[in-house]
Amino acid sequence: MSKKASIGVTGLAVMGRNLARNLARHGHTVALHNRSEARTRTLVEQFGDEGDFIPAYSAQEFVNALERPRQIVIMVQAGGPTDAVIEEFAPLLEPGDVIVDAGNAHFADTRRREAALRERGLHFVGTGVSGGEEGALNGPSIMPGGSKESYESLGPLFEDISAKVDGDPCCTHIGADGAGHFVKMVHNGIEYADMQLIAESFDLLRGAAGYSPAETADVFSTWNTGRLESYLIEITAEVLKHVDGSGKPFVDIVEDAAEQKGTGRWTVQIGLDLGVPISGIAEAVFARSLSGSKPLRAAARGLAGPARTPLKGAALETFADDVEQALYASKVVAYAQGFNQIQAGATEYGWDIDLGAVASIWRGGCIIRAKFLNDITAAYAEDPALPTLLTAGAFRKAVEDAQDSWRSVISTAVQLGIPTPGFSTALAYYDGLRADRLPAALVQGQRDFFGAHTYRRVDREGSFHTLWATDSRDEVGA
Amino acid sequence: MSKKASIGVTGLAVMGRNLARNLARHGHTVALHNRSEARTRTLVEQFGDEGDFIPAYSAQEFVNALERPRQIVIMVQAGGPTDAVIEEFAPLLEPGDVIVDAGNAHFADTRRREAALRERGLHFVGTGVSGGEEGALNGPSIMPGGSKESYESLGPLFEDISAKVDGDPCCTHIGADGAGHFVKMVHNGIEYADMQLIAESFDLLRGAAGYSPAETADVFSTWNTGRLESYLIEITAEVLKHVDGSGKPFVDIVEDAAEQKGTGRWTVQIGLDLGVPISGIAEAVFARSLSGSKPLRAAARGLAGPARTPLKGAALETFADDVEQALYASKVVAYAQGFNQIQAGATEYGWDIDLGAVASIWRGGCIIRAKFLNDITAAYAEDPALPTLLTAGAFRKAVEDAQDSWRSVISTAVQLGIPTPGFSTALAYYDGLRADRLPAALVQGQRDFFGAHTYRRVDREGSFHTLWATDSRDEVGA
Repeated sequence: MSKKASIGVTGLAVMGRNLARNLARHGHTVALHNRSEARTRTLVEQFGDEGDFIPAYSAQEFVNALERPRQIVIMVQAGGPTDAVIEEFAPLLEPGDVIVDAGNAHFADTRRREAALRERGLHFVGTGVSGGEEGALNGPSIMPGGSKESYESLGPLFEDISAKVDGDPCCTHIGADGAGHFVKMVHNGIEYADMQLIAESFDLLRGAAGYSPAETADVFSTWNTGRLESYLIEITAEVLKHVDGSGKPFVDIVEDAAEQKGTGRWTVQIGLDLGVPISGIAEAVFARSLSGSKPLRAAARGLAGPARTPLKGAALETFADDVEQALYASKVVAYAQGFNQIQAGATEYGWDIDLGAVASIWRGGCIIRAKFLNDITAAYAEDPALPTLLTAGAFRKAVEDAQDSWRSVISTAVQLGIPTPGFSTALAYYDGLRADRLPAALVQGQRDFFGAHTYRRVDREGSFHTLWATDSRDEVGA
Repeated sequence: MSKKASIGVTGLAVMGRNLARNLARHGHTVALHNRSEARTRTLVEQFGDEGDFIPAYSAQEFVNALERPRQIVIMVQAGGPTDAVIEEFAPLLEPGDVIVDAGNAHFADTRRREAALRERGLHFVGTGVSGGEEGALNGPSIMPGGSKESYESLGPLFEDISAKVDGDPCCTHIGADGAGHFVKMVHNGIEYADMQLIAESFDLLRGAAGYSPAETADVFSTWNTGRLESYLIEITAEVLKHVDGSGKPFVDIVEDAAEQKGTGRWTVQIGLDLGVPISGIAEAVFARSLSGSKPLRAAARGLAGPARTPLKGAALETFADDVEQALYASKVVAYAQGFNQIQAGATEYGWDIDLGAVASIWRGGCIIRAKFLNDITAAYAEDPALPTLLTAGAFRKAVEDAQDSWRSVISTAVQLGIPTPGFSTALAYYDGLRADRLPAALVQGQRDFFGAHTYRRVDREGSFHTLWATDSRDEVGA
């Protein structure tokens, strides 16, 4: 065994197998390991001609097969299994070696693991890998956290196998410890919001304008030639165009109960901890939960609603365009909220994250890949400290132009009884953000009244409390 | 020291002091203890004539002063300080004694503590106490968890000092271990939602109808004579009526940045874990965060919005009534969501919670006390397994009657650029719940397309996957 591998992959279920093949196809020698030997053997048998693999049938053999610094990619289930594999390999490694967790870990776990392994002289890199099975094989979007030092050896390999857009790799060093998994989490949250907005657009085209699924597919195909061009819009058209074996539109035979795997929920929970209003993601998560609440929905069927009088005349003529405007504006808000959450995470955990680079590596390989991300990269290039995407020139103008349609579409939905939680919260956020005064002043007054929680004034520094229970209602400093 | 105390309170800051005084005023002998002696002495000096107090200046002395089974109420800061006090007293107690945590603990901590103390033969009761300082002294709403056995000795004391409505005590045994703190948490979440809806009503009356703060105060006063009669509406009128020393309306001199102490956030985070859509509470939490995001708001001021053309004619005439309808309907949704969260918590943690009794003990002492809660109690009395308050006869009818106004008010807000995240999410939830079909079917199709996540069909049992990448697009069982 003279030749050594530049990287090893342990955990050879479909994601791990495809990552290993992707590495080998790019000319890297890849050591292979799996808890049960069968998967290792199968990989070599089926795909051994794609590149140089070194199968290993024990942890020690696997470690021995690697060049120094050793780089081990773990691709197993998040949680306990990941900890178990780390504990299996860490004792066999030497200072400077790198363990990569390419699974869907919670960033807090990644921070814990990184700190523990750093104590032992090892680099631990939690990395987001987006794009599913197909992306893992042909070019995913890769979001590695961990030390800068680890990226020196790992970066070139990962950039090599990542998706490319305009020649740029969809991989960059995100930031220290858990930054990679954090950004991957927010990516998934944004994906939830984006999908919800697309779903509402479909529901409106059908419910308000009376389009058939095939007609809505045409609308999405058209949109995909413009500023909304993206993987999600593209596959939406494909799904809506599809006719089931029964002869009915596919979308009509699918049970309307959306499932979820939990990263959207994490994103919202962490957003709440950070105090960032990410209502677009939250409404998307809630909409999925609501759709899956079968007994509740069964009980509520028949609650009163307005007549669904379809649009006519001029309103119908422009409706698809109006929905496009509403979708675009709502999407800008959802992304603005998500990027603000990344910013808040960076501040909280001391990560130096280049937001423009994040948008850039999402342009390929991942589910939310879209032309639109170029504008986000440009906005942060112009002002790295941009407080919100909504104030960046291009988005500001687009949302300004969109707003009459945006308001009109939501108004139509409200009047016709079509639920648009995503559109509505996006507009409420926009109107809240730009408001001169918010009724939060009343909330502060209520809180001071019932709980003596004090308030601040617009005209003087300090905290104040009003003696509500006395006739004088004097104000006292607090 | 022949006479013994029937209960003891340790932690004599304002909440603990007032609870102890309330107990003494009701004829119970109360042992007193505090980490620093000064507070104990002050209490006896200032309020010793209100009843029988036994001051104790050491943990052992405090424990010795109590009748068996001993009942110790801890009223200290949540988290570490609570654990420290428990560890101070638990070793001095005997099997069957009861430790009560009356602070604002997270219910998960309460579950942990209850389990640990149960092992040691002690009862641990986490109890919600609502009503602030004033309630603690004159009658709070009390929500004790813990064992049924502990409630036998503790219940009569707590019912005695609780608020009374129509002669009924605002205290009932909620359920095992953390049930009391869980229900208190949801109470606070609902409080957030209720306050947000009131704030939006005020903002609409002012922004769309052009009412002055004093005029809006009159509207709230009128509402308080009807179905919205409640403490929050009452104090809203008081706050809006108040004129500052500067001569300006109080609500105009308060900084419009709402603060929060965290229980609203907890409620949403736990709602997400339980998969319950509690969007009303979430939007209220986000609205507070947004209002407090100063740099963001400063940057966004000047983003384009519509002209604020005030309402005129018939629309103006009926507007306050329309807002009342919208507020009422949105409030029903917010409470429906909150009660569903309690139901889900009860299922998850095996608590036998009487939802009607919960509504009943919230009628007095606490911030959300309201006439309206009688209707919730009645609804659950009629059907304890009610899937949602929205389908209970009285609410169903009221929301049906309200809906034209509800839709019209939101539409007006959307057109005028007044943010109503609470109203909007309530309506979207209502329309989502009653929908025959939701676009979640499209979401499932997208998920199957990009991640092979499979879907269910409306016409056949089982899980299915479509071979999207092939021309045939055949469907396969999964």
